[in-house]
Amino acid sequence: MDVWHETEIRVRYAETDQMGIVHHSNYLIWFEQGRSDLCRTKGFSYKAMEEEGNALMVVAESYVRYKSPAFYEDLLTIRTRAAEVRSRSVRFVYEVFRAADSMLIAEGETHHLVTDDKKKVRVLPEIYRKLLTGEGLGEPVPADMPPG
Amino acid sequence: MDVWHETEIRVRYAETDQMGIVHHSNYLIWFEQGRSDLCRTKGFSYKAMEEEGNALMVVAESYVRYKSPAFYEDLLTIRTRAAEVRSRSVRFVYEVFRAADSMLIAEGETHHLVTDDKKKVRVLPEIYRKLLTGEGLGEPVPADMPPG
Amino acid sequence: MDVWHETEIRVRYAETDQMGIVHHSNYLIWFEQGRSDLCRTKGFSYKAMEEEGNALMVVAESYVRYKSPAFYEDLLTIRTRAAEVRSRSVRFVYEVFRAADSMLIAEGETHHLVTDDKKKVRVLPEIYRKLLTGEGLGEPVPADMPPG
Amino acid sequence: MDVWHETEIRVRYAETDQMGIVHHSNYLIWFEQGRSDLCRTKGFSYKAMEEEGNALMVVAESYVRYKSPAFYEDLLTIRTRAAEVRSRSVRFVYEVFRAADSMLIAEGETHHLVTDDKKKVRVLPEIYRKLLTGEGLGEPVPADMPPG
Repeated sequence: MDVWHETEIRVRYAETDQMGIVHHSNYLIWFEQGRSDLCRTKGFSYKAMEEEGNALMVVAESYVRYKSPAFYEDLLTIRTRAAEVRSRSVRFVYEVFRAADSMLIAEGETHHLVTDDKKKVRVLPEIYRKLLTGEGLGEPVPADMPPG
Repeated sequence: MDVWHETEIRVRYAETDQMGIVHHSNYLIWFEQGRSDLCRTKGFSYKAMEEEGNALMVVAESYVRYKSPAFYEDLLTIRTRAAEVRSRSVRFVYEVFRAADSMLIAEGETHHLVTDDKKKVRVLPEIYRKLLTGEGLGEPVPADMPPG
Repeated sequence: MDVWHETEIRVRYAETDQMGIVHHSNYLIWFEQGRSDLCRTKGFSYKAMEEEGNALMVVAESYVRYKSPAFYEDLLTIRTRAAEVRSRSVRFVYEVFRAADSMLIAEGETHHLVTDDKKKVRVLPEIYRKLLTGEGLGEPVPADMPPG
Repeated sequence: MDVWHETEIRVRYAETDQMGIVHHSNYLIWFEQGRSDLCRTKGFSYKAMEEEGNALMVVAESYVRYKSPAFYEDLLTIRTRAAEVRSRSVRFVYEVFRAADSMLIAEGETHHLVTDDKKKVRVLPEIYRKLLTGEGLGEPVPADMPPG
């Protein structure tokens, strides 16, 4: 069972810099898009969790290892996985591959604290914890299943 | 009498693209920084206007004319002017110069609607209108004078 | 025959600002992605045109009219059209719609000068001009056909 | 003796997200601005090193620890230090403070490989290594001293 969620993105011109490659700050934005997509696949919207669940996943730490440059128009796969789901924190890990040559472009991780909208640390609501871990859903839910 | 407000910025590496020049989307961000600085100079904080005055200046239109490329590490001057202050809308105009050779890099304008935090159009609070126009501050400050 | 090319994007968290809506600078980046996709659909890569054709389409002017705010996770359609293809310049026009409610989010245009890699204005190579206009291809090519 | 270089920046509106705080990807851009400024202070331009020295400092790893949120209009100090200057790699460390309350906002580090413009790893030219370490400039400048 593959627990990675995959998101496809195409490198935008604006994401390159004068070195002719993707600027390294963009990987954090792609990771975030990967997290967002993973949540949708797990059955909930990150947006709804913020608005209805009053639970924000504030980024506490980020780490990126840049393995090989990515270029304008590259079609990339962002692989995202909820590596650790605790009561007040979540850790996601990521891998970025280029579709054309299966090259590993980057890998990384982000560590999040769960807070309310006043930025106070709180417990991750049970429903989101279960959806993220797939626990108590009878059938294990492979992360690469289509949403819906 | 010069009614332009000047803001200095240095071009960041991340603002360049693979053409080796500043990506054209950054000018809108610099214009915004120019507006922000202009407000501070006029005696109020754009942030306070949003939070305390419940008045947001939502961007309704933007226009940029790119005259000459800017490069990494260039020291640029953003000149900003409140060209038109109406009861429910404000128009700012901008010029971007490079300090080193006085080259005109870009010029543009943005048109804003005044709204409350529900995005409903409202009247610009009197205090901000007066501060923006300089009206009632002893010396009238013409808002429509040509630069220089 | 519909000459608009359509590109789908999903709004990223990083593209929002503290007003809770998409920051207005992102539309220029989406327009660029629309142009890029349009070229691919027309049978050539913008990247190849830069590298092999030594022809860059430098942005000379941009105009955006923001009609309605877009939000995090919105699925948007960027419609792009080459409105004017001249020997040394090209003008693209754009419309941004939200899929969910068919709301017009923004519209705009960009005007480009064709230059070589030294930023010297040059004639757009015949092959790209023909591909952009669809001229001399026997059958008219509707812009909404899938690439390939 | 303080070996940290300090750069002041003011938070831009575009750098905030809908959480009402600075988006976490911007710290990497600020760190880069810190490096850039540090080089200028040390007597050379990063731009010149790329163009004349044919030496690029490609980012191989980045790490950021977000301690406290930063807000629109905050005046921040980016402290940058070349923590390790080796023949083919350089490591910079950073701290971000808010001027108003001396709050530590973030800390991080980036690890760089020295390459030529073909992205091939090479030795950091002697002149830049000496300027970065302060070696051979009369007074030795310890690169590993604690801040303050």
